[in-house]
Amino acid sequence: MAAPEAVVRLGENFAAFDDLWTPKIVGQINDMQLKAVKVRGEFVWHVHDDTDEFFLVRSGSMTIQMKGRPDAVLGPNEFFIVPKGIEHRPVAEEECEVLLLEPAGLVNTGDVSPGNMTAPNGDWI
Amino acid sequence: MAAPEAVVRLGENFAAFDDLWTPKIVGQINDMQLKAVKVRGEFVWHVHDDTDEFFLVRSGSMTIQMKGRPDAVLGPNEFFIVPKGIEHRPVAEEECEVLLLEPAGLVNTGDVSPGNMTAPNGDWI
Repeated sequence: MAAPEAVVRLGENFAAFDDLWTPKIVGQINDMQLKAVKVRGEFVWHVHDDTDEFFLVRSGSMTIQMKGRPDAVLGPNEFFIVPKGIEHRPVAEEECEVLLLEPAGLVNTGDVSPGNMTAPNGDWI
Repeated sequence: MAAPEAVVRLGENFAAFDDLWTPKIVGQINDMQLKAVKVRGEFVWHVHDDTDEFFLVRSGSMTIQMKGRPDAVLGPNEFFIVPKGIEHRPVAEEECEVLLLEPAGLVNTGDVSPGNMTAPNGDWI
């Protein structure tokens, strides 16, 4: 699907799926994609060597653990940018709705792909 | 100021300024910057020939008028991406809080810069 040239209502996007850790593309700005994802539990430790990764919490809360750095604890309307090259692991005790911003084509599990938590890439919602 | 490697609380960012039509940088992801802006009234018609521009409404509502296309009417948690090369003008009857995503260094008034509504570029908040 091409980028929709329409108003995107995020409430409708998030209401349209239930699966965890599987980012859905909701928009593309130049070569960057905005993705909606629901998370709960622990992801895998991984790194993106070539890109920063943006996490904005919409509802719930999550923690981004990083090697050698303090945790980033995020609640609603709070964001954190994991710099490229930093090994990290998102975790959430309860279900949490998150917006991601990252380059088109980025694989969610980075350097540990493919793996159990590698999601399909390129699905729009 | 360099990109803050800290959790960003958008409520605090928006509470920290009152001026209209003057985007403040709140984060940088690779070469893209996320900016907070408050708008009310009519902006100027302009175009960005080389980049898409992302508008996400946080509170209030705004309309993005475009030449030759239907208006995009945005409420809270709704976004629209103006494709590069499309002449557009944001307008808002009441004050509206907006997140922008665009390349670092982009001038807000595009091809009609400098002008009365050209804002300083590069200010973080």
